[in-house]
Amino acid sequence: MTLQSPINDELAAWDRDCLLHPTTHTAQHARGDVPGRIITGGEGCTIIDRDGNRFLDGFAALYCVNAGYGRSEIADAMNEQAQKLAFFHAFAGHGNEPAIKLARMIMDRAPDHMARVYFGLSGSDANETNVKLIWQYNNLLGRPEKRKIISRWRAYHGSGLVSGSLTGLAAYHARFNLPLDGFLHTHTPHYLRRPDTDMTEADFTNFLITELEAMIEAEGPDTIAAFIGEPIMGTGGILPPPAGYWERVQQVLARHDIALIADEVVTGFGRLGSMFGSDHYGMKPDFMTIAKGLTSAYAPLSGSIISQRIFDVLADGTDQFGALAHGWTYSAHPVSSAAGVATLALVDSMGLVENAAHTGPKLLAALRDAAGDHPNVGEIRGEGLLAAVEFMENPAERQFYDKPMAVSSAISAAMLRHGVIARPMPEGNIIGFAPPLCITEDEINQLAHALHLAIAEVLPR
Amino acid sequence: MTLQSPINDELAAWDRDCLLHPTTHTAQHARGDVPGRIITGGEGCTIIDRDGNRFLDGFAALYCVNAGYGRSEIADAMNEQAQKLAFFHAFAGHGNEPAIKLARMIMDRAPDHMARVYFGLSGSDANETNVKLIWQYNNLLGRPEKRKIISRWRAYHGSGLVSGSLTGLAAYHARFNLPLDGFLHTHTPHYLRRPDTDMTEADFTNFLITELEAMIEAEGPDTIAAFIGEPIMGTGGILPPPAGYWERVQQVLARHDIALIADEVVTGFGRLGSMFGSDHYGMKPDFMTIAKGLTSAYAPLSGSIISQRIFDVLADGTDQFGALAHGWTYSAHPVSSAAGVATLALVDSMGLVENAAHTGPKLLAALRDAAGDHPNVGEIRGEGLLAAVEFMENPAERQFYDKPMAVSSAISAAMLRHGVIARPMPEGNIIGFAPPLCITEDEINQLAHALHLAIAEVLPR
Ligand SMILES: Cc1ncc(COP(=O)(O)O)c(C=O)c1O
Ligand SMILES: Cc1ncc(COP(=O)(O)O)c(C=O)c1O
Repeated sequence: MTLQSPINDELAAWDRDCLLHPTTHTAQHARGDVPGRIITGGEGCTIIDRDGNRFLDGFAALYCVNAGYGRSEIADAMNEQAQKLAFFHAFAGHGNEPAIKLARMIMDRAPDHMARVYFGLSGSDANETNVKLIWQYNNLLGRPEKRKIISRWRAYHGSGLVSGSLTGLAAYHARFNLPLDGFLHTHTPHYLRRPDTDMTEADFTNFLITELEAMIEAEGPDTIAAFIGEPIMGTGGILPPPAGYWERVQQVLARHDIALIADEVVTGFGRLGSMFGSDHYGMKPDFMTIAKGLTSAYAPLSGSIISQRIFDVLADGTDQFGALAHGWTYSAHPVSSAAGVATLALVDSMGLVENAAHTGPKLLAALRDAAGDHPNVGEIRGEGLLAAVEFMENPAERQFYDKPMAVSSAISAAMLRHGVIARPMPEGNIIGFAPPLCITEDEINQLAHALHLAIAEVLPR
Repeated sequence: MTLQSPINDELAAWDRDCLLHPTTHTAQHARGDVPGRIITGGEGCTIIDRDGNRFLDGFAALYCVNAGYGRSEIADAMNEQAQKLAFFHAFAGHGNEPAIKLARMIMDRAPDHMARVYFGLSGSDANETNVKLIWQYNNLLGRPEKRKIISRWRAYHGSGLVSGSLTGLAAYHARFNLPLDGFLHTHTPHYLRRPDTDMTEADFTNFLITELEAMIEAEGPDTIAAFIGEPIMGTGGILPPPAGYWERVQQVLARHDIALIADEVVTGFGRLGSMFGSDHYGMKPDFMTIAKGLTSAYAPLSGSIISQRIFDVLADGTDQFGALAHGWTYSAHPVSSAAGVATLALVDSMGLVENAAHTGPKLLAALRDAAGDHPNVGEIRGEGLLAAVEFMENPAERQFYDKPMAVSSAISAAMLRHGVIARPMPEGNIIGFAPPLCITEDEINQLAHALHLAIAEVLPR
């Protein structure tokens, strides 16, 4: 397939002249060195650009369009609400029907020990809410010094100043003065990169736990408020944790009265073949961050689900001090909430959680068939509909490529020429897959086939 | 008028049991002590709750529904886009038609020296973007220590950890460990609260400038990256600055190479009877924060408009270091952008900027007629369709009430019984007005009449 080049017209010029894009090579974009691809439509797992190209989207935009493109059920629900009441705020106890219904639906799906959901707009702001609330909680308990947050290298929790401090990727820190003080990072739980190749997976889990405990001891447990983690690391490279990891981490946290924030922005609502990643890994978090799959990205909406023990203290605090002064104007936005209600209904009616559980193993198998025997393929891994292929200079010697993204970007570009989108992840040389949860086996085979062709072109044997 | 009490049914129970509301007395809400009012519809300047009550909304939700409720033009545009393509991301130069069109429309309206707009979701996240970008800018210029931000007491710039640090209201700091290090606050430019009653307005401006310069000198100009201000303070009490303030502030900033962030979340797109507050006050900012009026709140959308001199350095930085790693998944969201395009078209076709310029003085005059001679009214002030009435124990002696919000909450509650929403602002005893920009003179008179009745009830002479 030959891709049609982006049309260079007034719209393209406006784009170059007016819009500062997220995470983009700004100078190249402004010069038109890499003309922007303007997406105009989509259907199921396929998107269409205005040049007439169609792509099978193996990453669901940014692992968010879980129900697929062109779902008029969601658009219709948004429209019905927008025509009726597009907006009123939710401050001082005001409410709107879709936000309340959605809160009910979320709490029905969340683990039993969770108590309330606060709505934001982005995964980043929801993590910021989590940090604010855990700080308020500890201040109300009279322990203001318990405020540091432990995250992990290669985590992705957002791109704000606090959420970006939680993130553990160098590119998101450099020249932004991040991480801010008090945001710490412990080791990445990726067995492939264990410090010593002789370690068994159990040894590696022991190592991670020992290191975490050492960090807590060194800082002082009374200074640590929370530990944040994606159940399975996403943007850091799609890294399932070693066996026993979450159980052991939770034991450590419980011992030191450190709260657990499960960042379920990617894993929430079915990605791993379970409703939440916490269900999948037996996590019992105090906070769950949700976004992406909550609305399938049809409208901006995120949430912080908080546990009963956190809620009780915060509620008591308002009896002492009055209103909890935290709120975005667009918290509980009616149209975004309507998108959420329709999306969660679709997750059920389309059986998306079940489909992820069913097709996930087939995706992994197809990737193994397509790439497993290539000498530069170091690891093929995944859970549910979240998978990755990691390329290495020499897997047998555990030798990684020097340059991050050099090979993976070339593979991704080659796959695009074969009509498939897969994402070169920001560290290492990793191609990520996170298709819409409605993907079929046929489409999975297309993804794998494009990968196969791309590898043959970029890394001929 | 007697208000119908909120229906207490399943929906109300779900609300109490599941939803953590923004800035709400959480415990009272959960107990049902103050049953939540659920808004179900709206038309023009009027909203309707599900109990059948109609209110003239004198605060446009949270000064955001500027085009008024029930504008099917905006809802239709959102629906058209949602049916076509609800979402694709804008990372790595990807784009969508409404986001590009909206960027063009914004840059056509922004001052000439501005270069690009970056899209976020909330006013808070846009201010966070501003801080990130000014830090990146100074790091690229090799001056990493130039990073403190000066804000002002009583400012409101958001409710995140950094945006909340910029905010200068005690309620938004307490027990949240805010402000974070490096976020400073200088004096509130409100002549009524000048330190010495003998000061003329010119003296007071001199005082503010002297204090600002002293802060910059004490901290070291090389450590100060930016000064952030709302052209006219909003949530802090609707406080127009004293004459000459912005001109003088800008002279100081220029002398020390300190960037100016104009937070136009409230003032952007017509509120003051000018397109931007910067136009109104002759400000030449490096960053302009926009939200609220940009979509009339029909969909979550904010923006950071950056100047050419900032853009040039950031763009050069990407030639040196690669992509500028800052981005929310929902940056440049297609449906939110479509809402923005339709809203700015309505701002023009309905003549909202002109209407604000025309009816603003009538609002002020009506408030003066309604309340000006009451012995507890200390000040009636405003610009365009942003106005406030401040109540005092004894204006002649400049004696304020001890308890913030005690009188203003009572007045606001009484106005509600007369079918009008006006907002008790969080500090002092101030009732704020910021109606939709489509308000008519008749409706202005209703607002003022309700205020008159409420004052007579709460503060009988
Ligand atoms: C795990 C995780 N948390 C948080 C975020 C941030 O979400 P947003 O981009 O909506 O701010 C992301 C985005 O990819 C994510 O993957
Ligand atoms: C001047 C100003 N800046 C920023 C914000 C924060 O906007 P948001 O609530 O959308 O985060 C507000 C909200 O009222 C505001 O008035």
